Amino acid sequence: MTEPPPEGYLGATARIRSGPAPELVAAGYELELADAPLLARGLGLADLAHVAALAAIPEEDARALRAALLELHESPPEIDPRLGDLVNVRERWLEQRAGAAAGWLNAGRPRREAGRIAFRIAMRGLLLDLGDALLRHAAALGGAAARERDTLMPDYTYLQVAQPTTAGHWLLSFAYPVLRDLGRLESDLDWVNRSPAGSGGVNGSRFAVDRVRLSGLLGFDGPIEHTRDAMWQADGFTDAAWHAATAVTNASRFAEDLELYGSDEFALLRIGDELCRASALMPQKRNPYALVVIRGAAGTLLGRATGLLATQRTPSGRTDNLLYAYGELGGAIGLATRTVALAAAVAESLTFDRAAAARAVGERFAVAADVADVLCLHAGLDYRSAYNVVGRATAKRGAIDADSLDAAARELLGRSLELDAQVLADALDPAAAIASRTVHGGAAPEPMDAMLRSCEEALSGARERLGARRAAIEAAERALL
Amino acid sequence: MTEPPPEGYLGATARIRSGPAPELVAAGYELELADAPLLARGLGLADLAHVAALAAIPEEDARALRAALLELHESPPEIDPRLGDLVNVRERWLEQRAGAAAGWLNAGRPRREAGRIAFRIAMRGLLLDLGDALLRHAAALGGAAARERDTLMPDYTYLQVAQPTTAGHWLLSFAYPVLRDLGRLESDLDWVNRSPAGSGGVNGSRFAVDRVRLSGLLGFDGPIEHTRDAMWQADGFTDAAWHAATAVTNASRFAEDLELYGSDEFALLRIGDELCRASALMPQKRNPYALVVIRGAAGTLLGRATGLLATQRTPSGRTDNLLYAYGELGGAIGLATRTVALAAAVAESLTFDRAAAARAVGERFAVAADVADVLCLHAGLDYRSAYNVVGRATAKRGAIDADSLDAAARELLGRSLELDAQVLADALDPAAAIASRTVHGGAAPEPMDAMLRSCEEALSGARERLGARRAAIEAAERALL
Amino acid sequence: MTEPPPEGYLGATARIRSGPAPELVAAGYELELADAPLLARGLGLADLAHVAALAAIPEEDARALRAALLELHESPPEIDPRLGDLVNVRERWLEQRAGAAAGWLNAGRPRREAGRIAFRIAMRGLLLDLGDALLRHAAALGGAAARERDTLMPDYTYLQVAQPTTAGHWLLSFAYPVLRDLGRLESDLDWVNRSPAGSGGVNGSRFAVDRVRLSGLLGFDGPIEHTRDAMWQADGFTDAAWHAATAVTNASRFAEDLELYGSDEFALLRIGDELCRASALMPQKRNPYALVVIRGAAGTLLGRATGLLATQRTPSGRTDNLLYAYGELGGAIGLATRTVALAAAVAESLTFDRAAAARAVGERFAVAADVADVLCLHAGLDYRSAYNVVGRATAKRGAIDADSLDAAARELLGRSLELDAQVLADALDPAAAIASRTVHGGAAPEPMDAMLRSCEEALSGARERLGARRAAIEAAERALL
Amino acid sequence: MTEPPPEGYLGATARIRSGPAPELVAAGYELELADAPLLARGLGLADLAHVAALAAIPEEDARALRAALLELHESPPEIDPRLGDLVNVRERWLEQRAGAAAGWLNAGRPRREAGRIAFRIAMRGLLLDLGDALLRHAAALGGAAARERDTLMPDYTYLQVAQPTTAGHWLLSFAYPVLRDLGRLESDLDWVNRSPAGSGGVNGSRFAVDRVRLSGLLGFDGPIEHTRDAMWQADGFTDAAWHAATAVTNASRFAEDLELYGSDEFALLRIGDELCRASALMPQKRNPYALVVIRGAAGTLLGRATGLLATQRTPSGRTDNLLYAYGELGGAIGLATRTVALAAAVAESLTFDRAAAARAVGERFAVAADVADVLCLHAGLDYRSAYNVVGRATAKRGAIDADSLDAAARELLGRSLELDAQVLADALDPAAAIASRTVHGGAAPEPMDAMLRSCEEALSGARERLGARRAAIEAAERALL
Repeated sequence: MTEPPPEGYLGATARIRSGPAPELVAAGYELELADAPLLARGLGLADLAHVAALAAIPEEDARALRAALLELHESPPEIDPRLGDLVNVRERWLEQRAGAAAGWLNAGRPRREAGRIAFRIAMRGLLLDLGDALLRHAAALGGAAARERDTLMPDYTYLQVAQPTTAGHWLLSFAYPVLRDLGRLESDLDWVNRSPAGSGGVNGSRFAVDRVRLSGLLGFDGPIEHTRDAMWQADGFTDAAWHAATAVTNASRFAEDLELYGSDEFALLRIGDELCRASALMPQKRNPYALVVIRGAAGTLLGRATGLLATQRTPSGRTDNLLYAYGELGGAIGLATRTVALAAAVAESLTFDRAAAARAVGERFAVAADVADVLCLHAGLDYRSAYNVVGRATAKRGAIDADSLDAAARELLGRSLELDAQVLADALDPAAAIASRTVHGGAAPEPMDAMLRSCEEALSGARERLGARRAAIEAAERALL
Repeated sequence: MTEPPPEGYLGATARIRSGPAPELVAAGYELELADAPLLARGLGLADLAHVAALAAIPEEDARALRAALLELHESPPEIDPRLGDLVNVRERWLEQRAGAAAGWLNAGRPRREAGRIAFRIAMRGLLLDLGDALLRHAAALGGAAARERDTLMPDYTYLQVAQPTTAGHWLLSFAYPVLRDLGRLESDLDWVNRSPAGSGGVNGSRFAVDRVRLSGLLGFDGPIEHTRDAMWQADGFTDAAWHAATAVTNASRFAEDLELYGSDEFALLRIGDELCRASALMPQKRNPYALVVIRGAAGTLLGRATGLLATQRTPSGRTDNLLYAYGELGGAIGLATRTVALAAAVAESLTFDRAAAARAVGERFAVAADVADVLCLHAGLDYRSAYNVVGRATAKRGAIDADSLDAAARELLGRSLELDAQVLADALDPAAAIASRTVHGGAAPEPMDAMLRSCEEALSGARERLGARRAAIEAAERALL
Repeated sequence: MTEPPPEGYLGATARIRSGPAPELVAAGYELELADAPLLARGLGLADLAHVAALAAIPEEDARALRAALLELHESPPEIDPRLGDLVNVRERWLEQRAGAAAGWLNAGRPRREAGRIAFRIAMRGLLLDLGDALLRHAAALGGAAARERDTLMPDYTYLQVAQPTTAGHWLLSFAYPVLRDLGRLESDLDWVNRSPAGSGGVNGSRFAVDRVRLSGLLGFDGPIEHTRDAMWQADGFTDAAWHAATAVTNASRFAEDLELYGSDEFALLRIGDELCRASALMPQKRNPYALVVIRGAAGTLLGRATGLLATQRTPSGRTDNLLYAYGELGGAIGLATRTVALAAAVAESLTFDRAAAARAVGERFAVAADVADVLCLHAGLDYRSAYNVVGRATAKRGAIDADSLDAAARELLGRSLELDAQVLADALDPAAAIASRTVHGGAAPEPMDAMLRSCEEALSGARERLGARRAAIEAAERALL
Repeated sequence: MTEPPPEGYLGATARIRSGPAPELVAAGYELELADAPLLARGLGLADLAHVAALAAIPEEDARALRAALLELHESPPEIDPRLGDLVNVRERWLEQRAGAAAGWLNAGRPRREAGRIAFRIAMRGLLLDLGDALLRHAAALGGAAARERDTLMPDYTYLQVAQPTTAGHWLLSFAYPVLRDLGRLESDLDWVNRSPAGSGGVNGSRFAVDRVRLSGLLGFDGPIEHTRDAMWQADGFTDAAWHAATAVTNASRFAEDLELYGSDEFALLRIGDELCRASALMPQKRNPYALVVIRGAAGTLLGRATGLLATQRTPSGRTDNLLYAYGELGGAIGLATRTVALAAAVAESLTFDRAAAARAVGERFAVAADVADVLCLHAGLDYRSAYNVVGRATAKRGAIDADSLDAAARELLGRSLELDAQVLADALDPAAAIASRTVHGGAAPEPMDAMLRSCEEALSGARERLGARRAAIEAAERALL
């Protein structure tokens, strides 16, 4: 199989006398080159910072190299996969422009270091975009919750009507996980936006480079302390993938509820026309296509995260743990961003059929537990006894009223209840039931308003922090270029 | 957000009055259109078969439609993602060529049916390619095992020298899993190459279509019996993904062994130069890059399979279970094929340092268990006693010879062993130890030759069956066009 | 940390002078001993077969060992985890009963071989139990489908009413995947029920053992050909785990549909009281608890399978790939069996509200596509035009009748349809629509009856084969004891 | 199948007239009851706090209930799985002791709320234990790194000797991920140790309970704000499972390195005897059993985390997302703790063969890149040219010395190098190479000492915070009892 290396191939040396096998090109170099759109910009920045920080490089070479790098930044070249990965292709191209000066790019720096820097530069951008989508989604959920603060609807468990609740309380329960998704994203950014530059082969460059300065040039928050840790560990990347899967799983749970409640049988709400799609066969249909797109992404992203961590089970100085990670993680975060943005558009488009929702609360004994509560509070029963009385009334008489309750009580407890008529009427009124949920975090207007405020504040804080982060990074990148 | 639908958008109807939201285009339609290279050919075949099988379509319309479909087959059009998925885009294009005749494509057939057919057409091709790679890999392993049938080397467990074995026996142990991978692949093809055509919305087309004839036109082995099962189940697809991950995990185990045994410290073997790569920083290195590419693929594919099955946890008539599957599974099988072909190239390139391997067997008491065996067979000891004697000899005296064994036996058992010198010499000779492994499946030449023959036969059979399958499919596709 | 080894500890030798660290006992030996209930019986059988097949063992020792082994089979001893794994504990116990004769158990046989045999013996039993549960589930689905062959109900996609179908056709669509689950299980048994006995350290025992005879003694279908493959490969185990996850995912899809269709809003069907559960808080509820149990198992089993394959990414002669597999796979198959049996009980308990289901088909234009079909067949329209006419009629007029269709046709096509009244009446009748689904695999009575017969035959075949397999295994085990 | 409910079964009501099917008991109730050892204590605490916080309960009933609860805390009863889950079993038992007073336990509180509280109580304990294991592991790594600060050894990539490094730098690179594991664990504890108490059915209890007080009674850091979020979200649990898998994957990477470097071929280090194990067949072996136990746990835990998140893909008010989570997560964290403690014991037991490690650095041109560096710094070459010169010298001449370098330079660049002899001698000295790695995070003594200090500080901080947390929780629990 051994063939002479193609012109400019940097994978051969005096010890490796062959060009790459076609199978290696197809499975290896083309795999790496598929990440070129993700990495090219960051590689350019990494190279520019290297040239700026490396005292040893003669000024003339530095000038030639800078010029070539800026030219490369403007117009990336055609790629021949037989030349190796993107770093090889770039080095070859720079050699053609800047001659031997290009050789300085590897001074004290393996191919790997440039790749690690470029990947972190790409990831911080992708994570900031995901942050924007999460901010929008949380805001949309908060807005919808505020609008529907007083909209009665049934709470379902096991898909059986459980108790009265409000659409606002239900909607807001999806905002809290998104706020936590934002918190996790900020942690991920803390990890991602640190600099591996200056790590050398593994234990620090022999050249006098200032790792703190390099980090600043590249817009990172600071150097990753231990240089070997900087080169080889990926725990922050696997975490980011998992968090993306978690965020989209949260969106998927929301989408599953929407599909149910939006069915003609439940008929509590609708998502916007612009998020639906016709059937090619059945003219009467209005398929909530967006919800399917969201749900499928959750399973898909779970797989990406799993694959990434599975690939970390390898000895510590091998590249298998990061070779595929660039494309897999980049793709995963992009998919999560598109999906969360879609979920946000869905949340923004929601409309409720308030009358239908209120009707649904009135049916199927949603207030049964509230009546049992009231029997405890006003008729001196323990809860299990009250529960049995109400259960008997609903099952035997098909109604909850003074008569059916008294009958059940006589049967089960040997006495009637003598419940005040107004007290019973209140217990039977779903709106009154909601008004009684005044505990911290409950569905009554006061705790709802408090939560809406607290979410809004949390969102403002996150929005500000992410915005500042993006501004600082963009400023550093502009300065470097 | 509601905007008027773009010209030709088939996702809007009288009930859906809006074009798609940009978020829906980005997360949904563009996702589906990314599968266009995978599906376009199969969609054309599905449409042609539909036109051929649908009696109701007027002959003139059929003629116009056939012409337009063949034109589309030759030169696929530009794609505007705001028009929907590939079926939509094609319908719109056909409408422009063939007018209302294009409307017949949906007669008794949802968009989904055409997609399901196209995906199976694509998958059978991809699986046949994977089959070819597996055939090559198994043949390469068998060939190497035959060449190294008599090459002594240590067997390692826990990375500690265990017993003498041969490179041939070790190599051949990787061929058997590949033969099973081929068996699994053939099962997958049995499932994949069956026809969903004629299923209609879900329970059969109202139009008089002959599902058996449709299946034959499309080169399938027969119709999937139950039409709803045909439309919605994906268990054969998830199996194929898992089997791809399994096959590459087998290749990965092989690659991990090669990296160890190819290190300078073990120094038993080398892979070809054309599968290695230079370091950009360290001129003395010869990095076995191909092995890293193989190992990383195993973890990545495990994630793909996991994601696919996770996505099946959904009610039965939703499209989330297949929306992402097209791209995920297509990509996974392609990745597996490239990886297994690379593993085959590696196996073909293997060379052993036979002298070094033989030396390694001579060290570290690889024959200790053989000596203990011989103490059982010729000195009347039970195995645990023999084991203790040999263990004592190696640990205390650092040597296994008549003296050290006798000394240990006297110490432990109170008697000397009186072992025949030739018997002991045989036990200490690794080559003689191998010659004693004559049980079915053992490392001695006779069972090795029997296994090499049996592998070769299994391979020939699989090669013939897969070849016949490919020929039949290609004949049917040519006939349809 | 080094401590003297406890009395009888077989993990220490002249080279390893310490007993096990408490951390090793807690994380290692206790892990292995947790598998004792799974493995104990098979270890006893493996030892008995070893004694029977090993010519070298003196008859007196063999007799003593057999007696001790049978005693151990009847009454397994107390376990001290500081002695090591179950094989160690057993060896120590046998030593106390049978003295040095016990030492023969390791002649030509590592601890690992006995464990591999025992695990396969355990797994074939667990898989046969899973097979029984699958048989029952498939039979229950077929029975329900036969009972509800003519029960009209809507087909839903995107949870929107799509077309008329029957409960029988819908139910039967879940039986086919179960038949395939059975097929996969039979393949798994083919792999599992083969014998690793006689493999020796890795390349065959030096002792003259007959691997074919050993296999027969142990009730296996034959020896695994290659001895190293026999010792170290687990691809059949990971496949079995995946197939268990697949089977339960199929059951989960069924359970999700049932929860939807059993909600008060859909109200098409009910599962039995004995599979429901009360709420402790809400007396009116009837929670379909069984469905939750089924759905949660699907996700859990996906994780087990994923973990097992992830653990296979390791060099080839290490035990990490099987150390955890015993417990993980044994637990997974047991969980799958309990879950599938529960799904079978659910299917057996199903009752439909036929009147409600028929009413649901009458609403929401389920017949719209059928009417469009009829416009193609009887009014000379292509399908897209027919679709547009029906769509306009439903959206604008809220009704499908001769008038609304004619009006839409005039508007869109400039002509009226002149449709025969009886033809239209038939198209609007869901029962007539079903009767028209006579294609192979469709919902009409004839194809339904054909499918019910074909399922019944497939089930009988599988039932017979699994029964014969179980009988053969039990006979061999009895003979050995 | 319907059978009368067993005495005391709380799963039946007037609407559910049957006891549980045996399949439901086996798959459901026994599953839940298997969590009894995990949950029993927390359920008792939850009930005591409920009684303390519920104003409505009459004092006499409260007294009776408290007494019964404390009795139950001391001696948990026998469990009959046909009675339902642990909450049911407890309620039944309490009813027998305290009569109708037991009925108050469900006042404003579903079974689910008690379970959620108990699970968080159990998890915080398990996570604190994992924290202790991580603290020990990080300290052991830091200690070993300090001891081996100056031990030369080769750095390997692709298992090829790359550059000189130190054992200390290599060891310390594993401490940093453990510090991050600790950080992740603290985040998980922040989430876990918050109170769901008082959430009622879903939107707050109707009874006047003070959620802040309840939280304090139970030793939580505060209430989870939104009551529906408190009941149904599990994102903190899935995160904890992932982090456990990540921590053990980090330990697994360490263990893989140790197995390699501890092989006789590499022979750089040894783990303690008490962490090894004999082979039953091969007396000469010393199997590093602990490393296998660690590596297998990583794959297993990845599966657990994957299964947990897969199970979250479900609509929002179902219990499948938490039904299995109790056992799965509890088991996962326990497994992680045992594994990390074992890794810590391994790290504590490490000994290096310093002479062998230094010899290994001297071989295979580990200093090649350092020589190339020096050619840049002192001979005016760009790095690529220097690299080529050194590569040529090693490949052609098999030596790096002034002559071979000059010859290569003349050949490649047309000139000799005129390198100062002392400069070259320094470049060829691995110890001098290490001394030059003075950049932040490098292997030279100064940055090593700085990192050792920074790790020690990070550890002290974490140790203090976790200790304070445990003390506060224990104090609250004691106070409640």
